[in-house]
Amino acid sequence: MSTHVFDEAIALQAQPDGSWTGHTHPAYANMVGPFGGITAAQALNGVLQHPERLGDPVSLTVNFCAALTDGPFTVMARAARTNRSTQHWTIEIQQGDAIVMTGTAVTAVRRETWGVDEEPMPLCPPPAEVPPPQVMAPMEFVKRYEQLPVTGQLPAVWDGSGHSSLTQIWVRDNPPRPLDFASLACISDVFFPRVFIRRATHVPVGTVSLTVYFHASTEQLAQTGTGYLLGQAQAQAFRNGFFDQSSQLWNEAGVLLVTTHQIVYYKQ
Amino acid sequence: MSTHVFDEAIALQAQPDGSWTGHTHPAYANMVGPFGGITAAQALNGVLQHPERLGDPVSLTVNFCAALTDGPFTVMARAARTNRSTQHWTIEIQQGDAIVMTGTAVTAVRRETWGVDEEPMPLCPPPAEVPPPQVMAPMEFVKRYEQLPVTGQLPAVWDGSGHSSLTQIWVRDNPPRPLDFASLACISDVFFPRVFIRRATHVPVGTVSLTVYFHASTEQLAQTGTGYLLGQAQAQAFRNGFFDQSSQLWNEAGVLLVTTHQIVYYKQ
Repeated sequence: MSTHVFDEAIALQAQPDGSWTGHTHPAYANMVGPFGGITAAQALNGVLQHPERLGDPVSLTVNFCAALTDGPFTVMARAARTNRSTQHWTIEIQQGDAIVMTGTAVTAVRRETWGVDEEPMPLCPPPAEVPPPQVMAPMEFVKRYEQLPVTGQLPAVWDGSGHSSLTQIWVRDNPPRPLDFASLACISDVFFPRVFIRRATHVPVGTVSLTVYFHASTEQLAQTGTGYLLGQAQAQAFRNGFFDQSSQLWNEAGVLLVTTHQIVYYKQ
Repeated sequence: MSTHVFDEAIALQAQPDGSWTGHTHPAYANMVGPFGGITAAQALNGVLQHPERLGDPVSLTVNFCAALTDGPFTVMARAARTNRSTQHWTIEIQQGDAIVMTGTAVTAVRRETWGVDEEPMPLCPPPAEVPPPQVMAPMEFVKRYEQLPVTGQLPAVWDGSGHSSLTQIWVRDNPPRPLDFASLACISDVFFPRVFIRRATHVPVGTVSLTVYFHASTEQLAQTGTGYLLGQAQAQAFRNGFFDQSSQLWNEAGVLLVTTHQIVYYKQ
């Protein structure tokens, strides 16, 4: 069985000092440096692979300090505090002497409780009825995802005509790969910067901070398998060089797997 | 002029090693340990007061590792990376040898750009027309806020009858205090745990991770002054011991000052 390109990209080698060495992967290249989602997944993988890890990811925040340079990097994941059922992690990615990403994560042993999904999956046509996008962005990482846009795809004409930042897409790894926490973290960053959709105008952008809340259990990930996810993303405010965007990812059965938020730098 | 109790609570003393010493304040006590919002504000204040700080807060994430014990604590805020107009901070709060909070923040020199508020302020009656809450939670910190509930206040009867977690309130410091980034961080955590509203059932809860995105400029904070903020909070998913809640804070003029998210532990 050959290795999926995502597993190649997030592979980490343990170092004697407890840190990990990874390497940027050309298959997940963005305009400048790697796709932020793959960096988030690499950072989370430093926690997931850690021999001291307790439980599964509940939350992850990564802050992108600078575009990674193509080449090796070091992930440092430290269990800052371990409680009975929760564990707090600090994460840092370095290249040479420079810190290129800071972050934190919480893992927990989760137990079955009362629960409800308050945010319903929006009514959308099923994946089989949604045509592929008219426009494909040229970045390499975009080819790593099958994306079927229901609404709010990249503008075909950049004429400043946008009026809403809402996007809804069916999305999954390309080629398909059974969903796990690392790939879910990566897909959480798959939505194009909302400013492109809202303004239909190209401006320089870069995610500054990304937070992922994992609602999915390992059983729900297994049930999702290689199926499509319905992703929804929308901004709340664009102001003085930064905008936020909030997103949700449901599986085809309508289970809300992730809610995720980010704040993004934009110029002009 | 006497000092506002909030300023007393977030006061930090610089230490020779670059860290800060603070002290929990009885006025902001929660059920167990201090109100998470005041801890977030104390953490942010370690950045705000830092001599190396560049620009204003754009994002803040704090992770609550354990309830703080009443008494002194140490805030360590470190500029992990300083770029031309953005700066990345790592933050830790310690008591004795134990880490009780981890966090990160981003500050930036913000420049005027195109902008729009996509999430409109909900239509609500003005503060003068909203009666005070029927029920006041007994925690001390609750008295530090004037809260006028428009919808989704604490249940008068805990009979399991809830059906939506939506809350809308007018809120401001009590006594009034001109809004700044630290108090905005604190107020971002003012909303009761959504599980109380949704279930009308008392269960043990604790915020695990809180993220605040600051959209407000210093000018907009000055314009807001001691006016009311309209706060809105709602959960997206309750599952296996954790739920998320997303909130917004607008000033009376309808400017979206903050969007904020948290994930909260609950039992049963």
